[in-house]
Amino acid sequence: MQAITYDDQEELQLSIREKPVPAQDEVLIKVRLAGICNTDMEITSGMLGFNGVLGHEFVGEVVQDNQDKFTGRRVVGEVNIPCYDCQRCKRRQFRHCANIKALGMRGKDGVLAEYVTLPRENVFLVPNEITDKEAVFVEPIAAAVEIAEQYHLKPSEKIAILGDGKLGLIIAMTLQALGLPVTVIGRHENKLAKLSSLAIETYLEKNIPADFQDIPVVIDATGSSSGLESALNLVRPEGKVIFKTTIAKEININLAPLAINEVQLLGSRCGPFAPAIKLIKENNLPLGELITAQYPLKEGLKAFAKAREKDTLKVLVKP
Amino acid sequence: MQAITYDDQEELQLSIREKPVPAQDEVLIKVRLAGICNTDMEITSGMLGFNGVLGHEFVGEVVQDNQDKFTGRRVVGEVNIPCYDCQRCKRRQFRHCANIKALGMRGKDGVLAEYVTLPRENVFLVPNEITDKEAVFVEPIAAAVEIAEQYHLKPSEKIAILGDGKLGLIIAMTLQALGLPVTVIGRHENKLAKLSSLAIETYLEKNIPADFQDIPVVIDATGSSSGLESALNLVRPEGKVIFKTTIAKEININLAPLAINEVQLLGSRCGPFAPAIKLIKENNLPLGELITAQYPLKEGLKAFAKAREKDTLKVLVKP
Repeated sequence: MQAITYDDQEELQLSIREKPVPAQDEVLIKVRLAGICNTDMEITSGMLGFNGVLGHEFVGEVVQDNQDKFTGRRVVGEVNIPCYDCQRCKRRQFRHCANIKALGMRGKDGVLAEYVTLPRENVFLVPNEITDKEAVFVEPIAAAVEIAEQYHLKPSEKIAILGDGKLGLIIAMTLQALGLPVTVIGRHENKLAKLSSLAIETYLEKNIPADFQDIPVVIDATGSSSGLESALNLVRPEGKVIFKTTIAKEININLAPLAINEVQLLGSRCGPFAPAIKLIKENNLPLGELITAQYPLKEGLKAFAKAREKDTLKVLVKP
Repeated sequence: MQAITYDDQEELQLSIREKPVPAQDEVLIKVRLAGICNTDMEITSGMLGFNGVLGHEFVGEVVQDNQDKFTGRRVVGEVNIPCYDCQRCKRRQFRHCANIKALGMRGKDGVLAEYVTLPRENVFLVPNEITDKEAVFVEPIAAAVEIAEQYHLKPSEKIAILGDGKLGLIIAMTLQALGLPVTVIGRHENKLAKLSSLAIETYLEKNIPADFQDIPVVIDATGSSSGLESALNLVRPEGKVIFKTTIAKEININLAPLAINEVQLLGSRCGPFAPAIKLIKENNLPLGELITAQYPLKEGLKAFAKAREKDTLKVLVKP
């Protein structure tokens, strides 16, 4: 089968790989549609030390299930594959398993391929109401839901989202659907306009009103090293900064304001699939606005080149 | 009167100042004993832009109170002087007042002097059971109590305190007195030994056991730029790092582990005086162990020199 692979010798390439064979606890999935995430691009710069088939955002059809539970069904899949045996798993911190594998990121081939295998435990059915082009967003929407899963967000308390990239826009749509009062701060009029069908307040960073300050909750979804400093300037004393940025490099920052203003800087990563699926099914999220381009799998390298362009939002790949 | 003053022209010096005159809402206090804090030393490097009489840790006797409530009584005093009028004060965030003054730090002369004035609202009586040498520790113990005031610390969850300086040792004594299971990690055998009268686990940093990891709560009281990285290495996924370090300089750090491990980095600063006074009264804290030296006010410059020496813990100054 065809697959987009990366290894530190050969770089990114379109490869021919053996069709994977599911283990006893796994199902075989034919990928219908996949998305390229910023993490995939970080992997291609060698950051995470991963070698293998890339990709973890997808929707597919189960073509082999020894227990027949999912055969023929359209599914999405949770990225993290825990060992269920270490101390962290025993504490039910499955997504933080000490021996974790992660689809297309760590010890497990990903979804930018014709076929992928995944443990049955990781598979979630996609309701008919959700299209393939919506279903590829389940994983990033789950990551947005995670914020509300981890921390108490109050319907009365203003939330500022910093960043108008894919992540910022998805978090905005998600928290808006959860009834929370969000404002998005970005640097691109055309990206902020993607939210225009929703009643979401947006500001260009250079036009933030003077009285927009002392914000109870600020989410850093900039993916940039300057995001945290902006967030610490905007948040009110004893407020929360949700840290969604996973850039794997050192930043230079003065953290004294965090102690002095008693701010809470709260890390947040992957999230639960079931509420993300429910949220897409029950809300008319303008996810189509986030899709910049779609390529066939055999043009996967072009898809990555497009994904790296400055104005691109989501790029999809169809096997 | 004599006073230890700092300004960016004249540096640190022993000055002669007018005895202060209390405003209508203030009392006049004759200082009995004062302490030198790391913040005082930071001020003398020009960090906080403060000019005036230094010092904020003290015990004194009220010698003038127009309402006669405190006259003749032994008192300590809350450092932060809010305006009671700004938006933050209206939200009852008094210690984060937008127009805050702070004793010996911002807009208000401090306690390294024969006399000091303070708003009546900031004054707390010292019970007879507490000696002067204990009372000077009310302010830093309040800052330690603040951790439990802000965040839910569970009696069953291990707390690692990084740092065996004054702050680390005071936090250890305080949380131990609150029934919490603390372990102190330091670099100085002689400083860790100050806790030997208490049943507190201590380790030299170089001798941390291999199984001492995945700690639910880690407190960075190192006051050093490397403390946060050590804390992020020690804390378990979804755990709390309490950030007590207020070094006013940029640090270089990779914060990706904070997002990936969904850690909570929680700022913490000053705390409530009433529970700190109660805690000293009801517990036999070995605070005397923390006192390295005491100088008369007229030798205040020597006191600062001593306070800056590497092995010094608390230095006291007696007017």
